[in-house]
Amino acid sequence: MNGAESLVRTLVASGVDVCFANPGTSEMHFVAALDKVDGMRCHLGLFEGVVTGAADGYARMADKPAATLLHLGPGLGNGLANLHNARKANTPIVNVVGEHATYHIEHDAPLTADIEGIAWPVSHWVRTSMSAKAVARDGAEAVAAAMTPPGQIATLVLPANTAWEASEGQATPQPVPERAQVDGDAVRRSAEILRGTGQTLLLLTGHALRELPLELAGRIAAKTGAKVMAQGSNARLQRGAGRVPVNRIPFPVDQALEVLKGFQHIVLVGAKAPVAFFAYPGKPSLLYPEGCEIHALSTLEEDSVHALEWLADELGATGTEASVQRAERPARPTGALTKDSIAAALGALLPEDAIVADESVTTGRGFYPLTAGAPPHCWLNNMGGSIGLGMPLATGAAVACPDRKVVCLEGDGSGMYTLQALWTQARDGLDVTTVVFANRTYEILKGELANVGASNPGRKALDMLELGRPDLDWVAMSRGMGVSAERVENVDDFQTALARGLAEPGPYLVEVVV
Amino acid sequence: MNGAESLVRTLVASGVDVCFANPGTSEMHFVAALDKVDGMRCHLGLFEGVVTGAADGYARMADKPAATLLHLGPGLGNGLANLHNARKANTPIVNVVGEHATYHIEHDAPLTADIEGIAWPVSHWVRTSMSAKAVARDGAEAVAAAMTPPGQIATLVLPANTAWEASEGQATPQPVPERAQVDGDAVRRSAEILRGTGQTLLLLTGHALRELPLELAGRIAAKTGAKVMAQGSNARLQRGAGRVPVNRIPFPVDQALEVLKGFQHIVLVGAKAPVAFFAYPGKPSLLYPEGCEIHALSTLEEDSVHALEWLADELGATGTEASVQRAERPARPTGALTKDSIAAALGALLPEDAIVADESVTTGRGFYPLTAGAPPHCWLNNMGGSIGLGMPLATGAAVACPDRKVVCLEGDGSGMYTLQALWTQARDGLDVTTVVFANRTYEILKGELANVGASNPGRKALDMLELGRPDLDWVAMSRGMGVSAERVENVDDFQTALARGLAEPGPYLVEVVV
Repeated sequence: MNGAESLVRTLVASGVDVCFANPGTSEMHFVAALDKVDGMRCHLGLFEGVVTGAADGYARMADKPAATLLHLGPGLGNGLANLHNARKANTPIVNVVGEHATYHIEHDAPLTADIEGIAWPVSHWVRTSMSAKAVARDGAEAVAAAMTPPGQIATLVLPANTAWEASEGQATPQPVPERAQVDGDAVRRSAEILRGTGQTLLLLTGHALRELPLELAGRIAAKTGAKVMAQGSNARLQRGAGRVPVNRIPFPVDQALEVLKGFQHIVLVGAKAPVAFFAYPGKPSLLYPEGCEIHALSTLEEDSVHALEWLADELGATGTEASVQRAERPARPTGALTKDSIAAALGALLPEDAIVADESVTTGRGFYPLTAGAPPHCWLNNMGGSIGLGMPLATGAAVACPDRKVVCLEGDGSGMYTLQALWTQARDGLDVTTVVFANRTYEILKGELANVGASNPGRKALDMLELGRPDLDWVAMSRGMGVSAERVENVDDFQTALARGLAEPGPYLVEVVV
Repeated sequence: MNGAESLVRTLVASGVDVCFANPGTSEMHFVAALDKVDGMRCHLGLFEGVVTGAADGYARMADKPAATLLHLGPGLGNGLANLHNARKANTPIVNVVGEHATYHIEHDAPLTADIEGIAWPVSHWVRTSMSAKAVARDGAEAVAAAMTPPGQIATLVLPANTAWEASEGQATPQPVPERAQVDGDAVRRSAEILRGTGQTLLLLTGHALRELPLELAGRIAAKTGAKVMAQGSNARLQRGAGRVPVNRIPFPVDQALEVLKGFQHIVLVGAKAPVAFFAYPGKPSLLYPEGCEIHALSTLEEDSVHALEWLADELGATGTEASVQRAERPARPTGALTKDSIAAALGALLPEDAIVADESVTTGRGFYPLTAGAPPHCWLNNMGGSIGLGMPLATGAAVACPDRKVVCLEGDGSGMYTLQALWTQARDGLDVTTVVFANRTYEILKGELANVGASNPGRKALDMLELGRPDLDWVAMSRGMGVSAERVENVDDFQTALARGLAEPGPYLVEVVV
């Protein structure tokens, strides 16, 4: 058994049985091993940003890492932006990056690059496996590193001769550290604050946004009068009818300041103290008011579920009834296609158990409230702010959850970064309905240009912000990659098209001209 | 005048007057400055790999750098693979990468990343400009760094407050170092070898592949009986009727070994000693025979043109007549669409002064010989081996040379990485005829799988190498980005389609089903 086969067997034994891949020559032994090893499912992406974004979506829904297979430094480079996003989401991923044979590196062939140097800015763990006898063990350690709470990016560099030389067979899976328990002092101090008179916010992210911990947070809120909110972006949030509803801190600085202005205390449950996405001249970086005190109940690494149980207990809130979201859908909208009518249509049609991959940027700011009372569903955000995650994220989520409908809400500007994801959806028959909001502009940047003080842009500046001339034809591009698609220009047609996409299994794309 | 404006004015004063851009919020002041500063032409790319690849193509043809404008670490990450290619081509590029305001970085907002860490593996020069008063001077130094022979990647990180605070105005352009002259000993030693009896190869790359130095190399060869060849990949090679013809070292290891087996000496003119693209089990990394001696007439940094003049003089070859390429085109092919008939059609139709951006991978290995006698043209290769350069490279070359026809020869696999380049071609009316060879497979990898010893791949391995199921529809995708296109399935239709693309100004795409 060669090194590549020993690695694939070890990955499978460690629970990593899905691989998103865009291989090249140096990865051919890994590819050949797929035929020899049962239990590893491989999905081809035609661009590495699809591969890494899909691995992110998969792990968010499967609660375990996928592997990626990438071609040397530049292949890793193409996947870097979505690894950045995954790192910010603390998604576990095991990257396997091919490298030249160890003895070939000194010759500086065209593809030779500093792979570890490229990997480190987006990885928590990096190792080059220097021999076929070590690679299985290195792979087991990579999986354990990836699964170390709260989730990490582990990058294993695989020289070609490490892959092709004789190994010592599969390695034993490595133990994964448990989440640390919070300190009793943190719980008691949080309880003290919540019992006090100051207006308090419980700010959640990470695994505290699943149904059970949200229920606990809701009980604490009901008992103490605290508010519960989530970060602006979250890896996975369970919401909808019957669940404790949770709003997110808005993206625009002024709106965020307004939402947070009344709080004297913020108790962090896995979350970070709220900061602005960008700095703007004359505006603060911190979004909470001066004098507001920040306390950590739990860090992202710690067991926030247990922390909330303990806190509820400490506050005598275990039996308190939480206020949950009523089942209510907006009326099906008619008339003009606006951000509000699109949001209402989504709220009216979103199916039970849907997974929403949300990269709708400006068009989608109203989607969240109008889908609040839809049947239970998951909401996934871009955590790293690098656009081009939405369609790959949806692709990976669909691989993880073949029995659930994935709804990808995508801006046209952001969608263009990784549109190759549609082909993977077509090849693997993934159940994703993509809605592309074609405003034909980087709309967010027009606002940002004004925010930084350039409010009357001329033609040269506008040329950098507008996607028109020529307009993108998403229906043609989507069909060109094998995904059926249609374009709609009014809200009735949008609902018909969306319903069609949701009703049919497999991928579908709706271009909404807004 | 703010920092951004002082930077743009300094770039223009330093001769950098083209910018390929995919900006975001942190770059809005740079974008706003475009309206205030004359002389900077900006081209929007919808993905950063397009931006950096276009900057490569531009500089190869313009012999001076373009700027890129990229959005923080992930934007740079998306451009990394084509920066790797540009670095291996020693293309001068000035990257301007936006960053958070300096005081905002500590808050670890979503887009915060180690930008310098991401930049270093693909850059020769990296600097974060820490104040609006320093940024103009930093920009001038970045241009000088980029233009330092043989051409470098300079990455200037631009924090948002550096861009928006008050500057001290435009900085003085910095002096650019001249190419170093070769040492007389290197010339005399090379002359001695060439006068000797052993079979000698003059191996060229870089600026030694322009018409004049090739003429000098041709005279030396005629005088001494030496052979002249070019590296396997080269940034820009001038060839065609009336020029000294030069073959390239083949990609497949066995063919390269065969071509080089008879040589006792290799005299390097800017080139590197020939090494294999990849290592394979049981095959050598070095492509020249044991005992073959390697001598450097000139390094890539040095003035190879002067070195060849001096060498010709030393050898008394200044007046010798070089053997030049006869004007001859292949007969227009008929019958089946094969690699050979496609090559013949290209040779028959390639227009005078064409710029060929060649990323045709397996389909294109026969293109080079059958275009040898076409009218004078330039041939551009991918120097770094990271596929997805061809269409961006063609885009940038067309911006540099609006009066020349650019012919992009593109594989379907490689084309998918950066297909967004087509939109930029459409928006800016660039004169590029793209030919996509749709073999619906990573054909090269099927060969590589056999080369590494896995010759009977099963379904799971083949699934990673084949682009079919579903087939990509390049005509639909191209039209979806505003570029007229047609599909051909026989060689007559191919010639008609190619002639149509070449005759009409502006972008055009021909999908060739092979």
